[in-house]
Amino acid sequence: MLSAPPLAVGEAMHQLIAELFPICRSITGDGVRQTLARLQEHVPLTIHEVPTGTPVFDWIVPKEWNVRDAWVKNARGELVIDLRQSTLHVVSYSVPVRRRLSLAELRPRLHSIPGQPDIIPYRTNYYREDWGFCLSHNRLEAMEDGEYEVCIDSTLAPGALTYGEYFVPGVSPEEILISCHCCHPSLANDNLSGVALTTMLGRRAATQRLLLSYRFLFIPATIGSITWLACNQAATTRIKGGLVLSCVGDRGPVTYKKSRRGDASIDHAAAHVLRHRGVPERVRDFAPYGHDERQYCSPGFNLPVGCFTRTPNGEFPEYHSSADDLDFVTAESLADSYAAVTEIVEIIEQNRSYVRLNPMCEPQLGRRGLYHGLAGRAQLADVEMALLWVLNLSDGGASLLDIAERAGIHFSLVRGAADMLLSEGLIRAA
Amino acid sequence: MLSAPPLAVGEAMHQLIAELFPICRSITGDGVRQTLARLQEHVPLTIHEVPTGTPVFDWIVPKEWNVRDAWVKNARGELVIDLRQSTLHVVSYSVPVRRRLSLAELRPRLHSIPGQPDIIPYRTNYYREDWGFCLSHNRLEAMEDGEYEVCIDSTLAPGALTYGEYFVPGVSPEEILISCHCCHPSLANDNLSGVALTTMLGRRAATQRLLLSYRFLFIPATIGSITWLACNQAATTRIKGGLVLSCVGDRGPVTYKKSRRGDASIDHAAAHVLRHRGVPERVRDFAPYGHDERQYCSPGFNLPVGCFTRTPNGEFPEYHSSADDLDFVTAESLADSYAAVTEIVEIIEQNRSYVRLNPMCEPQLGRRGLYHGLAGRAQLADVEMALLWVLNLSDGGASLLDIAERAGIHFSLVRGAADMLLSEGLIRAA
Amino acid sequence: MLSAPPLAVGEAMHQLIAELFPICRSITGDGVRQTLARLQEHVPLTIHEVPTGTPVFDWIVPKEWNVRDAWVKNARGELVIDLRQSTLHVVSYSVPVRRRLSLAELRPRLHSIPGQPDIIPYRTNYYREDWGFCLSHNRLEAMEDGEYEVCIDSTLAPGALTYGEYFVPGVSPEEILISCHCCHPSLANDNLSGVALTTMLGRRAATQRLLLSYRFLFIPATIGSITWLACNQAATTRIKGGLVLSCVGDRGPVTYKKSRRGDASIDHAAAHVLRHRGVPERVRDFAPYGHDERQYCSPGFNLPVGCFTRTPNGEFPEYHSSADDLDFVTAESLADSYAAVTEIVEIIEQNRSYVRLNPMCEPQLGRRGLYHGLAGRAQLADVEMALLWVLNLSDGGASLLDIAERAGIHFSLVRGAADMLLSEGLIRAA
Repeated sequence: MLSAPPLAVGEAMHQLIAELFPICRSITGDGVRQTLARLQEHVPLTIHEVPTGTPVFDWIVPKEWNVRDAWVKNARGELVIDLRQSTLHVVSYSVPVRRRLSLAELRPRLHSIPGQPDIIPYRTNYYREDWGFCLSHNRLEAMEDGEYEVCIDSTLAPGALTYGEYFVPGVSPEEILISCHCCHPSLANDNLSGVALTTMLGRRAATQRLLLSYRFLFIPATIGSITWLACNQAATTRIKGGLVLSCVGDRGPVTYKKSRRGDASIDHAAAHVLRHRGVPERVRDFAPYGHDERQYCSPGFNLPVGCFTRTPNGEFPEYHSSADDLDFVTAESLADSYAAVTEIVEIIEQNRSYVRLNPMCEPQLGRRGLYHGLAGRAQLADVEMALLWVLNLSDGGASLLDIAERAGIHFSLVRGAADMLLSEGLIRAA
Repeated sequence: MLSAPPLAVGEAMHQLIAELFPICRSITGDGVRQTLARLQEHVPLTIHEVPTGTPVFDWIVPKEWNVRDAWVKNARGELVIDLRQSTLHVVSYSVPVRRRLSLAELRPRLHSIPGQPDIIPYRTNYYREDWGFCLSHNRLEAMEDGEYEVCIDSTLAPGALTYGEYFVPGVSPEEILISCHCCHPSLANDNLSGVALTTMLGRRAATQRLLLSYRFLFIPATIGSITWLACNQAATTRIKGGLVLSCVGDRGPVTYKKSRRGDASIDHAAAHVLRHRGVPERVRDFAPYGHDERQYCSPGFNLPVGCFTRTPNGEFPEYHSSADDLDFVTAESLADSYAAVTEIVEIIEQNRSYVRLNPMCEPQLGRRGLYHGLAGRAQLADVEMALLWVLNLSDGGASLLDIAERAGIHFSLVRGAADMLLSEGLIRAA
Repeated sequence: MLSAPPLAVGEAMHQLIAELFPICRSITGDGVRQTLARLQEHVPLTIHEVPTGTPVFDWIVPKEWNVRDAWVKNARGELVIDLRQSTLHVVSYSVPVRRRLSLAELRPRLHSIPGQPDIIPYRTNYYREDWGFCLSHNRLEAMEDGEYEVCIDSTLAPGALTYGEYFVPGVSPEEILISCHCCHPSLANDNLSGVALTTMLGRRAATQRLLLSYRFLFIPATIGSITWLACNQAATTRIKGGLVLSCVGDRGPVTYKKSRRGDASIDHAAAHVLRHRGVPERVRDFAPYGHDERQYCSPGFNLPVGCFTRTPNGEFPEYHSSADDLDFVTAESLADSYAAVTEIVEIIEQNRSYVRLNPMCEPQLGRRGLYHGLAGRAQLADVEMALLWVLNLSDGGASLLDIAERAGIHFSLVRGAADMLLSEGLIRAA
């Protein structure tokens, strides 16, 4: 956990992102199915198909959207915009269209970013039947007056919302929830990085003896988490902690956004890990904008689910654009995110409270070999201090994480001390 | 509320201060009666007369004091000190005197400020029968040895304590208390500015549909609030929040001193307003010195009443002296104080808690026209963020002000968002 | 209390330290007995002897150790190390030994501090039967190869653990505990300074009319407090507050380490005193390393006992070495520590809560002579502010110390104001 993260994991994640990058995903449709099928090569996902029209709280599962082709040709018949060049060129959920129109008529349906003239923005149009194209501002500026031919060969029809789920049972029915969104087309950081990290965490969970159960969700943003919550209300009461994973591959420092509760054990664990990593980090209070924590932390659920990112959504200029590409995410950052998240999850896994068997005074550590023999030193070894902290604060109330926080030392040191004291019969589980 | 305060209100307040300035007020007597009579031209005050000798808690309503003339003449018969030049020249509550005496005999009864030699101090002598004069130190230094003739043509006799009260009933019997003291002679900031602001707030309340009831008190300091509290103990339980208004016309930044409770809704509302005004401000903890909040916040009442000033009492060199004159207060500052106080009061008026009708996940704002159509943006509009905050935190516990504070956005934005959600049937009053 | 501490007390403490300095103390044995016998000349200590083998919680009272002589001679018969030069030369609790051995064989039993080559370290070996010597690194480096003769003329045999106790009954059975350790040989700051301060506090308690009872303990570190706690469990419930005194004579600023509770009245009192002294000071959170507060604050007891030092253990380079000598402690620092501790203890002694007899509004202080006659001043006198604070906050909940802390004024001013209000019949004990 504290050793340098194996870069190999980061490289495998980057490779997975590269494989998934070309697929044209949206919140429904075959792009999601292809993506989940690839992931099944790594983790035994269950694929759920929820039919169009299914009511999910205030929402209804939308029609399924698929696009085969989308382009704009100029009067000379030359391709000016072409979906095959970038999946971002078509506004997601565009209805089918085939028509000729002047640039003036077409112009309101063309989206670009004047301040970033080289890149293609990412735009969606899920819940209003309409169509449009995205392109770089330079290309837009270069378009001459005259007639254009427009084609969007898409279907928007009854079908299903598709999501993937992987459940790894542990000794306890209490669950850790790891959730990512898999609905964005060719965007690497937001959020193929989250998909790759969730996949690797799933692989890891499959190989370990775990106390807690783990649930990994690969869902379309917003409607996916709403759908899962609507279909699994009973299961939510077992969620002991969770993380939404997004934007975990860029070069920025790690950021943890607390759950709505603000003092859930996942919040304390994440803050503890980030504070002790010795590199810049950011711990932020909950806000109801962001990713699927918006749904998990709605007042009717109020789940202990935070959001782990590097640079948060909307805070990097490449966000939701063609600049969020394979070069924008690095194996180093992905490996570092993997290391931080596994460390957070391990704290939730290992944290508990103990009580001293005889809480009167300190026990004699020296005769148990837990204390340096020749006394008189100015400072204790770190492990001795950790032993004293666990002995002093184990009154059934404070957890090991509480002790680590009060002592200002790393959880792993406290956990190790507790194990020594357990094996000596000096403490017992509370 | 958030628009620039109408300077016209400030000018009207300054005009009212100028009209009241020449009157020689004290804690009892005709000066107060004349003052309240003038105010009745603006608001329909009820005038209360509480007889001398009435016991009010640990105190007794004192004798009534009136002064017709007060002067000191030198041996040549020239007026050296003259009440007609300034109402500050006589120590308030001086007993009648007419006598000749040497400068040495007179000297202990002459009060000046050596460090501010041009200005006349304001001194009172309410609860000890005595007499004296106040004058500038320069004038004092110029007095030659020799005999002086002294005249204070005053009466100190059974009468009444006079105060004004204006009650505006609202839908709810719960009250907002606005209190000012009207016992100082020719002093503009302390506290004719408070008298003028209270008057304008009374006029405003008379013209609005209000949920809460409003009570405006124009009382002599200390003995006035004690008298009102003694006579209205039952009414105090209906006070939901209140402000003592004083020193609201000088050029200093606005200051709010919290109630003794420190976390009353008036305290949160005032701190919220001050923090969001974008100009320097001061929020201070309660202390038992100051104005009539000393009585409202005595432990037996412990009312949620704070004190709103610009520069607090005793913190400006012009305090309690002839330098606190009509030039020391400005229409701009008076208008700004009016704007801030009305904003605070409106928060108390409008603040309440709501609950989501279906608290599971977010409702679909898009189909209700509350969410921007084409998605993918990095940032939400302010109103969209406010909608998400209200939806996320409306669980019956948090009030709109709590939500505004947690979200770090202005109450008015949160209030507006709640109104939209109410009209959509997404929340209901808790 | 607030006047300059009488240097005479500090000089008496320094004198006492000098008298006790040469005695070779350990956690048991005649050194402790001689030390306590000397202290009996100052305070009527009860001497307790707890037999070797007595079980005390997880520990057993160890064998008694005494040493008559200890030396190392070189091949020429010259004394290289000699207990008569310094009591630090022998590792405390060394078993008897008399043998010849080479420098190579002897070397692992010789302890020095290479980084501080002139001083002799202090080392102990209480709970493992072994032997060794301490010496300066310079002397160690000067030892030539060859054979050495070693002698430790000690006994380690059944006997007793000796400690001193002085109890001064007060009106109330509630106790203040003052504890110091008396087990170190010739070390001045750690902890003959604590022994001297505890002695002087005992003398002071004997001469005063006290509300609380006082218990002064002179005990060997760790095993002494464990033994006392094991033998006096019932008494611990009467401990209202306590201080472990150690390292109170060096030139560093005063340090208070809070009890495990962190918010006990002793913690507030100590922080209050330190904050108001106008000199640098340190208030620290509890940690389970240090002195006997480790035992008093073990979870089964959790007593309100903090630790008062100047420079804490291990934070000065002279710690546990021959450099902690009579020059390292000063009469000035000792007197200053005495002043601070007596001030802390007096707050615990005098602190209580009051209630206003008539809590409605302020009482009329003027007619009781408690308020300056001629009003209109910008600022009140300190005593008038203290009167207003006590009147405002005396609702039975807040103690005088709470009031002093909220008001930001010194406890003694608040205590004085409460006395005036008591004598006027305006407040009564809660």
